[in-house]
Amino acid sequence: MTIGTEPHDPLDASELESLHRWWQAANYLSAGQIYLMANPLLREPLRPEHIKPRLLGHWGTTPGLNFVYAHLNRAIMRRDLEMMYVIGPGHGGPGLVAASWLEGSYAEIYPDVGHDLDGLTRLFTQFSFPGGIPSHVAPETPGSINEGGELGYSLAHAYGAAFDNPGLTVACVVGDGEAETGALATSWHSTKFVDPARDGAVLPILHLNGFKIASPTVLARIPEEELRSLLRGYGHEPRFVIGDEPTAMHQSFASALDDCLDDIAEFQDRARRRNTPDRPRWPMIVLRTPKGWTGPPTLHGKRVVGSWRAHQVPLPGPRTDPEQLRQLEDWLRSYGPEVLFEPGGAPIPEIRELHPVGSRRMSASPHANGGLLLRALRLPDFREYGVAVDRPGATTASATGVLGEFLRDVLRSNAEEGSFRLFSPDENNSNRLGAVLDATGRNWNAVREPEDDAALAVDGRLMEMLSEHTCQGWLEGYLLTGRHGLFSCYEAFVHIVDSMFNQHAKWLKVTRELPWRRPIASLNYLLTSHVWRQDHNGFTHQDPGFIDHVMNKKAEIVRVYLPPDANTLLSVTDHCLRSKDYVNVIVAGKQPEAQYLDIEAAATHCTKGIGVWEWASNDAEGGPDAVLGCAGDVPTSEVLAAVDLLRTRLPELRLRVINVVDLMRLQDERQHPHGLSDIAFDSLFTTDRPVIFAYHGYPWLIHRLTYRRANHENFHVHGYNEEGTTTTPFDMCVLNKIDRYHLAIDVIDRVGGLGAAADYARQEFQDTLIRHRRYVTTHGEDLPEVRDWSWPSWNNRS
Amino acid sequence: MTIGTEPHDPLDASELESLHRWWQAANYLSAGQIYLMANPLLREPLRPEHIKPRLLGHWGTTPGLNFVYAHLNRAIMRRDLEMMYVIGPGHGGPGLVAASWLEGSYAEIYPDVGHDLDGLTRLFTQFSFPGGIPSHVAPETPGSINEGGELGYSLAHAYGAAFDNPGLTVACVVGDGEAETGALATSWHSTKFVDPARDGAVLPILHLNGFKIASPTVLARIPEEELRSLLRGYGHEPRFVIGDEPTAMHQSFASALDDCLDDIAEFQDRARRRNTPDRPRWPMIVLRTPKGWTGPPTLHGKRVVGSWRAHQVPLPGPRTDPEQLRQLEDWLRSYGPEVLFEPGGAPIPEIRELHPVGSRRMSASPHANGGLLLRALRLPDFREYGVAVDRPGATTASATGVLGEFLRDVLRSNAEEGSFRLFSPDENNSNRLGAVLDATGRNWNAVREPEDDAALAVDGRLMEMLSEHTCQGWLEGYLLTGRHGLFSCYEAFVHIVDSMFNQHAKWLKVTRELPWRRPIASLNYLLTSHVWRQDHNGFTHQDPGFIDHVMNKKAEIVRVYLPPDANTLLSVTDHCLRSKDYVNVIVAGKQPEAQYLDIEAAATHCTKGIGVWEWASNDAEGGPDAVLGCAGDVPTSEVLAAVDLLRTRLPELRLRVINVVDLMRLQDERQHPHGLSDIAFDSLFTTDRPVIFAYHGYPWLIHRLTYRRANHENFHVHGYNEEGTTTTPFDMCVLNKIDRYHLAIDVIDRVGGLGAAADYARQEFQDTLIRHRRYVTTHGEDLPEVRDWSWPSWNNRS
Repeated sequence: MTIGTEPHDPLDASELESLHRWWQAANYLSAGQIYLMANPLLREPLRPEHIKPRLLGHWGTTPGLNFVYAHLNRAIMRRDLEMMYVIGPGHGGPGLVAASWLEGSYAEIYPDVGHDLDGLTRLFTQFSFPGGIPSHVAPETPGSINEGGELGYSLAHAYGAAFDNPGLTVACVVGDGEAETGALATSWHSTKFVDPARDGAVLPILHLNGFKIASPTVLARIPEEELRSLLRGYGHEPRFVIGDEPTAMHQSFASALDDCLDDIAEFQDRARRRNTPDRPRWPMIVLRTPKGWTGPPTLHGKRVVGSWRAHQVPLPGPRTDPEQLRQLEDWLRSYGPEVLFEPGGAPIPEIRELHPVGSRRMSASPHANGGLLLRALRLPDFREYGVAVDRPGATTASATGVLGEFLRDVLRSNAEEGSFRLFSPDENNSNRLGAVLDATGRNWNAVREPEDDAALAVDGRLMEMLSEHTCQGWLEGYLLTGRHGLFSCYEAFVHIVDSMFNQHAKWLKVTRELPWRRPIASLNYLLTSHVWRQDHNGFTHQDPGFIDHVMNKKAEIVRVYLPPDANTLLSVTDHCLRSKDYVNVIVAGKQPEAQYLDIEAAATHCTKGIGVWEWASNDAEGGPDAVLGCAGDVPTSEVLAAVDLLRTRLPELRLRVINVVDLMRLQDERQHPHGLSDIAFDSLFTTDRPVIFAYHGYPWLIHRLTYRRANHENFHVHGYNEEGTTTTPFDMCVLNKIDRYHLAIDVIDRVGGLGAAADYARQEFQDTLIRHRRYVTTHGEDLPEVRDWSWPSWNNRS
Repeated sequence: MTIGTEPHDPLDASELESLHRWWQAANYLSAGQIYLMANPLLREPLRPEHIKPRLLGHWGTTPGLNFVYAHLNRAIMRRDLEMMYVIGPGHGGPGLVAASWLEGSYAEIYPDVGHDLDGLTRLFTQFSFPGGIPSHVAPETPGSINEGGELGYSLAHAYGAAFDNPGLTVACVVGDGEAETGALATSWHSTKFVDPARDGAVLPILHLNGFKIASPTVLARIPEEELRSLLRGYGHEPRFVIGDEPTAMHQSFASALDDCLDDIAEFQDRARRRNTPDRPRWPMIVLRTPKGWTGPPTLHGKRVVGSWRAHQVPLPGPRTDPEQLRQLEDWLRSYGPEVLFEPGGAPIPEIRELHPVGSRRMSASPHANGGLLLRALRLPDFREYGVAVDRPGATTASATGVLGEFLRDVLRSNAEEGSFRLFSPDENNSNRLGAVLDATGRNWNAVREPEDDAALAVDGRLMEMLSEHTCQGWLEGYLLTGRHGLFSCYEAFVHIVDSMFNQHAKWLKVTRELPWRRPIASLNYLLTSHVWRQDHNGFTHQDPGFIDHVMNKKAEIVRVYLPPDANTLLSVTDHCLRSKDYVNVIVAGKQPEAQYLDIEAAATHCTKGIGVWEWASNDAEGGPDAVLGCAGDVPTSEVLAAVDLLRTRLPELRLRVINVVDLMRLQDERQHPHGLSDIAFDSLFTTDRPVIFAYHGYPWLIHRLTYRRANHENFHVHGYNEEGTTTTPFDMCVLNKIDRYHLAIDVIDRVGGLGAAADYARQEFQDTLIRHRRYVTTHGEDLPEVRDWSWPSWNNRS
């Protein structure tokens, strides 16, 4: 690097020198992590046994990440900023670890990795090493909220972090590989959902590193004007910093960053004085540097720096190839470890002290360990929102409609704190949560027109964009920085974020093993517009498989609730909003449905999670001839109707109805903390009676949960069998054989030997099914006896 | 509409009039489908009983779709174009059905829905009616390849259709709601992966309808210059058509469409004469019209047209509200049904005949019923690519590396036909399929630089973009139009397209019930870089759950294969490439691994799908004391190593090794067409011996597949338990207890009563596990006895 400054350069010579030296140190430490397990300061010539036996890690993106880090630190110190650093190209794990180690935050968390030779050796050895730390930016990395394994979520996470944090600036490096993913490509439009007055700012830094694993990247290979046009189209004003000569790059980047931060300050200042009606054109930086910058230029005559060959380990064989060993030593020595570090292993004071203080260090930001900032939500008493239910079935209500009123007041109670938001892909009203609009607006910072719903508001707490990815990413960022939220989504389309759920669940699993990571609020899904009531939208909208997907993750992380009515939904949601470090999946209907339990009974039932509904059962004497299990609102109502059919026709038949709210109760207590003991399970489901189980989703799952139970052979599960189209809700049940008639027939068949009355009833039910099919396809509505089915007398006996 | 033309207008008065009349007819038929079940021509005053009891459907987007259809037809006729119409806003189902009915293609497929009063009544009644047709553009809709239920995939499907179809122009309406999804947002970049010489063209029409279910859309609410900038950033030159006055809109759209088609013709012509080195700036249209255009302006004083209220059924209550009934009648009569249709129900000749002929009709395009065009792939004999295996374990090979050579020659054999492509999110080489680059290039039509891999080629058949969504969407479009392909993907990240898989599987399920839909080539996934060999990338890259996800779909659609070595992978892939109408999931490793079966044995084993490996078993006399099952390459090698440990130490113990390639063989024959009978299953797994099963994925699945089998209680499944980090591959096995030592201990414990030698061996294995942990975290590599484990003598006895 040539040290020399021009009058208009933002950095004077000494600033330039210290910045550069810090960068050199971070780069040295990054390369050291990838390669070395001994001789960390190169105090002796490099020998094969100093090199790790298995070289794992990604160099390519790392020097760029370190470069940005150094400059952000300068800005934080000069401006006393509160900043976070979200890294899209998370393969660059060693860079972030190096920065944390240099800033001292690493040793604060991991005391045996301090500023001495032992610590330095451990820093190098542990990286990508069995029993050590992962190769990516991960939960183990101080200052991180974005796992760098699966790409695409950095920008949405950054916005989630910035919401309701007016003092925070989130620098977000977007990799040019990551930028090709769907999730990332649409999250640029977050610019229309940020309030410069109430929220913090996101500063995207698009890093044109040039190559993915093997191919060039799209955004690095379109003309600069086309890229500028694209980014302006996203609502940004990009500043380009391009090159590889360090001095020029330092000056250019410092200047661009200063300009961006000036713009952000001005936009926020204007908005906070309330004299800016317009959405600002937010600044951003495009940083184009060679992949593997400062690394070995070539290997065996082939280009490394500036090519895809720099993606992972640029010199793959230094342990066996003396030529590569020499190249590696030259490369490492090019950073000047002898001037960067003291003989004892600590960075020299000029480097060691070149960072913001305390929690201003990005690697020590409390926002990146959100549990530190988490405050419990103020929750109104959910009992006050309960629907009156004098007797089961007497009242009809929309479960999500009732929940909307509770959520409205949760929003109100936490408005001042600014710690709760709702997220939905334009489905809030469709999901009958419209009441929340009395408490907040629908977030919107794009053009408004006269005919718009008055609810659009720049500072709305209802976040709606027709991108499940962005909604989920925002929510994750919001939770990871210590706030609360709920994602309401059509059940079928939550599969769009299967993979994001995976990554969040994995993040939670790892953080639970890290004592310094404080618990965060749970990620709460409300899945509605569910499979049984997507009769109008048809087959594409019918998929209850997210529950199955969720169940593959660690039992200590996931919870699944199927409240059968409004009051149980209230109780379950209240519970979920208080919980930490879980993913809670709540499945509930939005259509007006019969209500079964008053609010106290609902609370009791939900606390148990499973229970016999005695008011619907008639097995008090002698135990049941058959057990009818149900989980989910529509299965529950069909089971109750089946019980009515059977009790009317076969009064001697003893039936027990068991409703399951907390699906995990079915599992073995050794498999899941909510699991029932075998004794408790057997006392509910018996060890030898047939169990006809109507389940909301794919029937397999109930078998999977119960296959070790004594009575499992007698479980007969009805559920969604991937049969559907545009039809009536009841016909959906019939197509999948979960309707009252199929259930009643199954009970008769499984109990067996019930005599002539049962044979007659069975025939009647089968005839009804045939009549149904004919009627519904002719009239477009259900049989009168189905439509007008009224609640029987037995549920009056309280 | 004012009929009047200016000299520069593209449409003369008569053309304008017929276009407009066709549009009116399509709009009338669309509204009729939503509302009417009788009185289809309004020959008598509208009465409540003419209205369907349940009103389902989406009006909002429909008139715009009809408008575009009319204009495309004009262009097809004038230019003799071959066009397809891909509809992103697929809620507009009635529009496409109306167009097909007008063109006569509907009655060709559904003869009872013809051009007479009965047919017209049926057309109206069947829509969104039980036993009728879905409300969206669906498999049932002639001319469609894109289900409009879940949004986001139209543009990728359109490009998939255009690849290798140089004569085809695919008009693709992108909804402004859909445009907010991740999948759609990134698929605009397909412009860098289309070859103007060899491929057809995609003409995107971004329809700014203005509103989603409840909110405005982002792209309709950014300034026009910002939108133009965005679209130019995607590589397009947009032409804007904005308004609501029909005459002006017809002229303006016709003019824009003419210009776009001129540009496309010129770009293609230039490219095909080989004098255009540059990627063209492809034309597109932005069409801004009011939502619900031509519908009822208001309801109860609130705006309908031009607002979110027009999204579904604009007048929801005409059956009960006389005012709405009157409004509906006025609205329907505004199209002039008495002049559009003959008394017999047929459209008047001027409308009936206003369409292209035969297969030029978009609703009769053979491309949209790709099975019509499907020709079998020319496949070289996979046996010629087999790895020599003199005895099990003697050879080492990378399974995907070997497969790459086969795929290379599949590409070569079908190069002329142009009917086979590979798709991968930049993972082809990482997945060791590099040999294919000898036969084709990596598709790339962006800027190239000197240091690039020479494999980049405008006409490459290897499609790599770092977007699983786009890869999957392209492939679906390619298959649906009658070609073949294979998607290779990291196993963990295929979850990104869980939801796209769902929709494709649903599409296949429905098309199998439609005789006129001809079978298409299967969607083939090759999942590699799988959970057991993502030790280097860590926990985020470890997820074998896609198999579970797939298993929820209809048994007749899905197939899952876990070939244990290279030769079985060859055999399985050959089979999958010949199959139709399935989704095939193949999971196979890329790392060099032991090979077990020579190519003939592999072919036989794969044909059976499951079988005893007698060379590894020693239960010939008296049957087994224990069965060791395995499915997947790593589980298989650990099972074989466990057998070695046990046979060395406990030679009296009789073991049977069963390898499963076709996972569905485990299932009951009543559940899946590949399922084994109980007799066959029991003869393999016995009815009373312990079965220690090492499975590639989450262990639940094996229980789910076998829970009805006699011996299920004795199944003890080892699989992935969501434990992982950056470590060695063998340590991954240990962490999840699927390694040889845990398996061997489990055999000893489950068989029981094996005496002192077994107790001693058990203790030895436990000690080894403890030593392993200590060794691997110290040395970063596995115990020498694990690394150097060599194949035992027993596998020599063949």
